[in-house]
Amino acid sequence: MKKLVLAYSGGLDTSYCAKYLSREKGYEVHAVSVNTGGFSKEEIATIKEKALQLGASSYTSIDAVKTFYDKVVKYLIFGNVLKNNTYPLSVSSERIVQAIEIVNHAKKIGAKYIAHGSTGAGNDQVRFDMIFQIIAPDIEIITPIRDEQLSREQEIAYLQKHGIDYSWEKAKYSINRGLWGTSVGGEETLTSEKPLPDSAYPSQLEEKTPSEVTLTFERGELVAINGRQDSPVANIEKLNAMASKYAIGRDIHVGDTIIGIKGRVGFEAPAPLIILKAHHLLEKHTLSKWQQYQKEQMGNFYGMLLHEGNYLDAVMRNIEVFLTDTQKTVSGEVFVGLYPFQFRLNGISSKHDLMNASFGSYGEMNKAWTSEDAKGFIKILSNPGKIYNYVNQDDD
Amino acid sequence: MKKLVLAYSGGLDTSYCAKYLSREKGYEVHAVSVNTGGFSKEEIATIKEKALQLGASSYTSIDAVKTFYDKVVKYLIFGNVLKNNTYPLSVSSERIVQAIEIVNHAKKIGAKYIAHGSTGAGNDQVRFDMIFQIIAPDIEIITPIRDEQLSREQEIAYLQKHGIDYSWEKAKYSINRGLWGTSVGGEETLTSEKPLPDSAYPSQLEEKTPSEVTLTFERGELVAINGRQDSPVANIEKLNAMASKYAIGRDIHVGDTIIGIKGRVGFEAPAPLIILKAHHLLEKHTLSKWQQYQKEQMGNFYGMLLHEGNYLDAVMRNIEVFLTDTQKTVSGEVFVGLYPFQFRLNGISSKHDLMNASFGSYGEMNKAWTSEDAKGFIKILSNPGKIYNYVNQDDD
Amino acid sequence: MKKLVLAYSGGLDTSYCAKYLSREKGYEVHAVSVNTGGFSKEEIATIKEKALQLGASSYTSIDAVKTFYDKVVKYLIFGNVLKNNTYPLSVSSERIVQAIEIVNHAKKIGAKYIAHGSTGAGNDQVRFDMIFQIIAPDIEIITPIRDEQLSREQEIAYLQKHGIDYSWEKAKYSINRGLWGTSVGGEETLTSEKPLPDSAYPSQLEEKTPSEVTLTFERGELVAINGRQDSPVANIEKLNAMASKYAIGRDIHVGDTIIGIKGRVGFEAPAPLIILKAHHLLEKHTLSKWQQYQKEQMGNFYGMLLHEGNYLDAVMRNIEVFLTDTQKTVSGEVFVGLYPFQFRLNGISSKHDLMNASFGSYGEMNKAWTSEDAKGFIKILSNPGKIYNYVNQDDD
Amino acid sequence: MKKLVLAYSGGLDTSYCAKYLSREKGYEVHAVSVNTGGFSKEEIATIKEKALQLGASSYTSIDAVKTFYDKVVKYLIFGNVLKNNTYPLSVSSERIVQAIEIVNHAKKIGAKYIAHGSTGAGNDQVRFDMIFQIIAPDIEIITPIRDEQLSREQEIAYLQKHGIDYSWEKAKYSINRGLWGTSVGGEETLTSEKPLPDSAYPSQLEEKTPSEVTLTFERGELVAINGRQDSPVANIEKLNAMASKYAIGRDIHVGDTIIGIKGRVGFEAPAPLIILKAHHLLEKHTLSKWQQYQKEQMGNFYGMLLHEGNYLDAVMRNIEVFLTDTQKTVSGEVFVGLYPFQFRLNGISSKHDLMNASFGSYGEMNKAWTSEDAKGFIKILSNPGKIYNYVNQDDD
Repeated sequence: MKKLVLAYSGGLDTSYCAKYLSREKGYEVHAVSVNTGGFSKEEIATIKEKALQLGASSYTSIDAVKTFYDKVVKYLIFGNVLKNNTYPLSVSSERIVQAIEIVNHAKKIGAKYIAHGSTGAGNDQVRFDMIFQIIAPDIEIITPIRDEQLSREQEIAYLQKHGIDYSWEKAKYSINRGLWGTSVGGEETLTSEKPLPDSAYPSQLEEKTPSEVTLTFERGELVAINGRQDSPVANIEKLNAMASKYAIGRDIHVGDTIIGIKGRVGFEAPAPLIILKAHHLLEKHTLSKWQQYQKEQMGNFYGMLLHEGNYLDAVMRNIEVFLTDTQKTVSGEVFVGLYPFQFRLNGISSKHDLMNASFGSYGEMNKAWTSEDAKGFIKILSNPGKIYNYVNQDDD
Repeated sequence: MKKLVLAYSGGLDTSYCAKYLSREKGYEVHAVSVNTGGFSKEEIATIKEKALQLGASSYTSIDAVKTFYDKVVKYLIFGNVLKNNTYPLSVSSERIVQAIEIVNHAKKIGAKYIAHGSTGAGNDQVRFDMIFQIIAPDIEIITPIRDEQLSREQEIAYLQKHGIDYSWEKAKYSINRGLWGTSVGGEETLTSEKPLPDSAYPSQLEEKTPSEVTLTFERGELVAINGRQDSPVANIEKLNAMASKYAIGRDIHVGDTIIGIKGRVGFEAPAPLIILKAHHLLEKHTLSKWQQYQKEQMGNFYGMLLHEGNYLDAVMRNIEVFLTDTQKTVSGEVFVGLYPFQFRLNGISSKHDLMNASFGSYGEMNKAWTSEDAKGFIKILSNPGKIYNYVNQDDD
Repeated sequence: MKKLVLAYSGGLDTSYCAKYLSREKGYEVHAVSVNTGGFSKEEIATIKEKALQLGASSYTSIDAVKTFYDKVVKYLIFGNVLKNNTYPLSVSSERIVQAIEIVNHAKKIGAKYIAHGSTGAGNDQVRFDMIFQIIAPDIEIITPIRDEQLSREQEIAYLQKHGIDYSWEKAKYSINRGLWGTSVGGEETLTSEKPLPDSAYPSQLEEKTPSEVTLTFERGELVAINGRQDSPVANIEKLNAMASKYAIGRDIHVGDTIIGIKGRVGFEAPAPLIILKAHHLLEKHTLSKWQQYQKEQMGNFYGMLLHEGNYLDAVMRNIEVFLTDTQKTVSGEVFVGLYPFQFRLNGISSKHDLMNASFGSYGEMNKAWTSEDAKGFIKILSNPGKIYNYVNQDDD
Repeated sequence: MKKLVLAYSGGLDTSYCAKYLSREKGYEVHAVSVNTGGFSKEEIATIKEKALQLGASSYTSIDAVKTFYDKVVKYLIFGNVLKNNTYPLSVSSERIVQAIEIVNHAKKIGAKYIAHGSTGAGNDQVRFDMIFQIIAPDIEIITPIRDEQLSREQEIAYLQKHGIDYSWEKAKYSINRGLWGTSVGGEETLTSEKPLPDSAYPSQLEEKTPSEVTLTFERGELVAINGRQDSPVANIEKLNAMASKYAIGRDIHVGDTIIGIKGRVGFEAPAPLIILKAHHLLEKHTLSKWQQYQKEQMGNFYGMLLHEGNYLDAVMRNIEVFLTDTQKTVSGEVFVGLYPFQFRLNGISSKHDLMNASFGSYGEMNKAWTSEDAKGFIKILSNPGKIYNYVNQDDD
């Protein structure tokens, strides 16, 4: 029988795929869900039960949270990556890791087919298909939802006909949860004008009393919160729990999809936003001007290619090596104030702090140079401009 | 007698210069202050009175607010310029315009000397001197504060000895006000760890009830607030007044000075931050992906050179022309929510909105292409990766 | 009857299209060839005759040489664009203009179909289709060669069957001629190892005596050769004629196609290479360091998007405006030596020359600054490094 | 006595320094020359003799050729660095290594002073001083030539007065020789118009019969010539010897000095130019489009900072790591034809060649995708343009 691995989430589309592919198309369906931070144990148990009920021959839950961090999130932090200066690439980055894990699973069990539930209008199909085609060109990709373009009603009708009678009530907002943020789509995000209502966001304001949290970075990685060492993944989860009570980290991203149209999506990403901004502040203190300049270009470029599914391009590995090398001095503590709906960066402490050097202090005359030095410096700095103006003075 | 133009602010340093240069050095001192948005009429009257009392032969107040906007601020908006992703270059950008106006004045009255009160440790000396030397290489620059490195006490003593007995009580926080923001320095900003206390900021939270404001942009310029047309300068001032009641736009900038050391400065810039972010959002809807990509690089570069006093480099004019050309479709309304300490971008409306085209809507299958088109697209997009992996598959 | 405009070159593929589309598919075929510098009058007369014989209802030759220069070549010169530092984009840039002219013609005569003879493996299909779809989304694109994948033999057999009995002997090298260079493909360019033999290039070494030619640029445009004013187009043609006798400007380009595979193509472009290098030299003398820095980035980016058929992206207009603005001072003469197989840039003369300013001369101590100024300059330039080393001295 | 290390070359300026500093200023002068490829054993013996005769307490010749390659040249090759697309940074890059070696020597012998013979008008003073100040801030820098601005005649007179009677006849062309190229300055390079005469170049055309040479690269390094393995340094020297007989690699560089004025310098760099272009060609075959894109930006930036003496900026180490990582697949052979005054890149062979993959061949329809795939690809690629034009069609 034709072994097929189905990227299964428990939602309507992939449930339809599970039933349809096993029953109508004769595939031996092996359902897989890759957890990049969005599923609890209970949810996974439910997903498993559903999958088997729908006709899957097996169900596997792959825990890829650490892989997700090691392969992607770490570099997003090193690169201070916010797509369009706004969006931490919460979903885009998960898809990459999910696709790789699914291929690995397919190879392990010797499946010659991979199925996923993406439509033909979005980014996810591109991210999935590209990874599949590049690292497993011999595996055939099966996408019933994209190919048949069924409506929700049609999918539900089909499932009901075959005895699957879940409540498929459409949630008002579609939510995608993960370690690096939760995306929120709804009728407002289909317009350009309207914000999401507060209630659309998964987290709600619970804590109104400001507090301060200390983040400790070691070579760019978040190694402790309030002085308690833990793995970066655990620290991200902990910070998410703390900051989401303040309803921090909400925004709407407007971006260019790979398919060439503009899209809008809400998100809630308290830990990502705090970490990125805190990390960036630490870099302002510990990196040279030109390091910051090149990191900005490289980080943005990395984010663009990642967003567009180009994670496997060889340049991405080169940039990761670059970014990692820049983190050698990015160690220290960042003091962050948490407030309802916002956070403030209060300051940092680092033994690599280039500002607090006894060398000199800004604002008063420095022993490292004299006023004559400064005047010479400026005089020579003016040379190109002086010459340019002298030569071109008769022009318009 | 040797005619000298003194860049005069009314503060201790430039008061010392006025007295010292006219009395000890025999200059005919013509005091000038260039208003880039920081002075009220009353303040100017006081400054004038002081200047003359200190021995200045004349005092001139130059209103350069519109010039400041036309020559600099406009392009900072077009380029979404936030230095280090944080700072709207409030002070840096003013100095440029002030220097140019001072040279123009010196040329007008035939002065052969220009004096300013900068020290030898900061950025301002570079910005002033570079402009002076480039566009008026024959004018000699006089900088008593930089050259003599007197303490506050010494300056006060000198002034008192000569009958000038103002209260020179040092403010706890040094404030520089202008159209494009107010900078705040104090003992905390000399450390890396400490935030400024709320009280250090000129504006205080007065309004706790959220409100919404509509900003209308026309080719990138802010032409109306809540539907009322006015000049961009007036609109910036109006928005500053509205938003400062919410204590919006405070932050601390950590940056690399031209002199090569790191510096930290607080600022309050409600209108600049709201305008930059609102403008940026409008661009996300109305510009192509590559326009945004190149604008980001050019805007950041423009900000870097401006910050470093390189305003007169010919490339700056080229970039201004580029940025202006990108604004052809950046017209429309942006809806902004004002809240205590923060603002939210709710959405936009524009006839150039590339998202709301009837062409297609994100999230559901589009008539503009079929699932086969999408699959072909992705297949070919995968070519480079497929080949790379095929060729290099035997490697490590 | 269904009006169709066929991009017709007189070659086998488009001849097949002409016959096939008129005879089998019932189109009213209007053949069009767009001359971007490659066709002589005699060739056009022959092409016309053929087209009509093949069943075309009309034939139109559009002279687009000046348009080609004004819309594309000019900016390639301004931007010193050499793809991968090698290739002047001879063919890529022509296709864009040809596509636009074809659409204009189709609109003029009210045709609802456009046909071209590209295969499904190359860049040209992308360049043509993208332009057609973007500016004429209602016109249907017909591509028999791409769709039917016939062999040369099949095409010839079909034509012969219908009484068209030209000699379709395959040239050993496929040549594409135009104002901005001639491309040469052959069996060697399908390998990575082999160069093209000298005989494959259209021009052969005829002149062995070196000579010097003076190129006069005015705001970046080539306005005179050896002091004789003429239009840039005429000057390019004249220089091509002069320099091709020296067999100058041959090379092989290895590049990434839009379709994602690598390709190799020979070319001969004497005038383009001389002009680009001469223009670049003039810029080194007349532009500031930062103008050159940004121009390089923008020029390369412009070339990349042009190569990939993205000519219509709005950012391209923005970059053209930028590049044009940088040319304000790029005027003067460049002295070029012509030698067999090579040219040398001997020097330049320009009233905007920033080097020959009486301001200062390189190599001897300058009056514009003292040794103390230089020492102050360097001291302060060293600040960031000094601090960095001081702070991080205890590290590995 | 005050120990001083003098960077000694054997020329007039540093000979003056040796005498003057030991005799008039009471320093214990330890002369050092750092060989980065320019000196033969005989020359070093002569230099040593002179140094001791001039009053130096010791003379040390440091062989830094391999260090020069390992620390700088290697990365210039990896980055395909040609300043302004012309100059391999022959001299600029040597100075860095020389400065570091001199500091190391000074620290080793416990010297508190370092002297060099640079003037106050050029780049070398900046390169030397910056390195010295950053890694040895406690060592005082002594520069008699810069400080006293003596003429050649004055220096010679002083030396003659003290019994040093060498022939100081000024060479018509000042030559600086090194592993990575030889610079040539003369009266022509002080103008903008004139080329250097052929005779000014150290190497002359000796070989008129074309030949082919095969360069083997392993991870970006030149490991063999014509199949004979040797160290990269030895290979560079060997290739220099072969190619200089063809008078290959001459040109004139026009660039912006650190001091802000434009300068012009001739150079002869046969091996560097051949290696850089051969390496670049190999990369075109073995790197992805985006690797090439980012490498170009990084390489140019690296060259700019190196040229300007910023070798010690931390970003340089980050870029070196990046460039090294990109070389993983840059292995293979490049076939180069040598001709009088020029060379040609004939082709390459590499197991990492992305072009010669059996995957597909350019120019004919490919089995990896169908014509429908190509059409879908282009259709979706056109989406942004289609939308943009649709939305903005009513505009000017």
